[in-house]
Amino acid sequence: MPRIRIVLVEPLYDGNVGFSARVMKNFGFTELILVNPCPLGVEAYARASHARDVLEQADVMSIGEVLSTSNLTIATTGALSLSACHPIRMPFYSPKEVRNLIDGYEGTISVLFGRENWGLNNDEVRQADLICTIPASDVYPIVNLSHAVGIVCYELAAIPKGEIALASPEEMTHLYRHIDEYLDLVDHPRFKRESTMTLIRRILGRCNLTWREATTIHGLLRRSEWRFAPREPGDAGKESRKYHPEDTDSNDTR
Amino acid sequence: MPRIRIVLVEPLYDGNVGFSARVMKNFGFTELILVNPCPLGVEAYARASHARDVLEQADVMSIGEVLSTSNLTIATTGALSLSACHPIRMPFYSPKEVRNLIDGYEGTISVLFGRENWGLNNDEVRQADLICTIPASDVYPIVNLSHAVGIVCYELAAIPKGEIALASPEEMTHLYRHIDEYLDLVDHPRFKRESTMTLIRRILGRCNLTWREATTIHGLLRRSEWRFAPREPGDAGKESRKYHPEDTDSNDTR
Repeated sequence: MPRIRIVLVEPLYDGNVGFSARVMKNFGFTELILVNPCPLGVEAYARASHARDVLEQADVMSIGEVLSTSNLTIATTGALSLSACHPIRMPFYSPKEVRNLIDGYEGTISVLFGRENWGLNNDEVRQADLICTIPASDVYPIVNLSHAVGIVCYELAAIPKGEIALASPEEMTHLYRHIDEYLDLVDHPRFKRESTMTLIRRILGRCNLTWREATTIHGLLRRSEWRFAPREPGDAGKESRKYHPEDTDSNDTR
Repeated sequence: MPRIRIVLVEPLYDGNVGFSARVMKNFGFTELILVNPCPLGVEAYARASHARDVLEQADVMSIGEVLSTSNLTIATTGALSLSACHPIRMPFYSPKEVRNLIDGYEGTISVLFGRENWGLNNDEVRQADLICTIPASDVYPIVNLSHAVGIVCYELAAIPKGEIALASPEEMTHLYRHIDEYLDLVDHPRFKRESTMTLIRRILGRCNLTWREATTIHGLLRRSEWRFAPREPGDAGKESRKYHPEDTDSNDTR
């Protein structure tokens, strides 16, 4: 993973510096660099909240020092300043595209954010390797500094963006078989079965069931089976054990 | 596209409400709903900046009214409150996954954000259709309310996340042919040509050149060709015209 530094160039409001430190830490980044910053007062520390350490360890350097210690420099610019005919600010990448571009990169990457009222100037942008722009609404494209830092950190974070433990294909097959057998039990007519099972697969298929949810549905079916048990004691008992998650002969339980 | 409403449940600080309004408008959302909010004072309007209209048009309603007027309700929860064994808050989706899930959805979607100090309570989460959690660092997972709103709005926005007008395959083929012929002109040895051209393709290939950049490289090669022109006046002249973007027989220019 690359080492990623967040560089605030001449920030004007210390509240934004504090919020930036906080949202950096939220996404696992700790290296904050300040270029000619405003004084950091109580507002900065209040907004930083539990990221006080990020604020206290922030380095103050010049743009030249930032550039000379970076393998790759990324300048962020507002959507407003873009023009296809302006080569300094073109081509630009969205944070998502930057994430893909730097994937597997080894080295120090500095991401520059400009002043609240003015952004980065042309000279600063010209020296960067990549331009990053957050896609925003034409109606009001000016994103607050710390919110821009937050969105870029969110995208660049090495934190997986979702990993739900879905039920395995085997678990889903078991579930559909259980449902099919349950439909036998309640005298669902055979000639309707295929289309009904397809409908059930459509519903459960798009639900992205977790293992736990699939287990709960098995359990609910078993409850009904137990209610029927007085009518057919032997069969219902076997039936209900067949899909029990604690069965020792089943490999589907976790 | 679905109609997306941002619902702040009992926000405690009006500055966060203002910042939320601003970042909503940044990503094209205007429907803000407040459930039992703190009073909105100067801080709210200062932070909202040019999203004063979003703040002024915000509706105040109860959770019950929000639910009864939504086709789909999404509860956002902090990473801290998650546990695989807690079905109320499971399964959860990242904002990116939510974006994919609601793609093509028609209807009203309400995205609920909880109190700064407490989030949403179990009762509020239980009534939601989907759970959304921003993947954050274990070290400090508590994202400020308005930054969480910003990241969710960024993901759900109907704004394309990057569309760079890259040079077309034909333009790249022209460029490589121009470079190859240029290498002839500077007596680059034939036996090295294939490996050198491969190296050049590797470099330019991963650059994702825009049309404009490809045109500029043509232009730079032509400058050199013009310098050689005194040596071979007829040929160099022809050479340089071959790739001129304003050639009327070329379809590659835009």
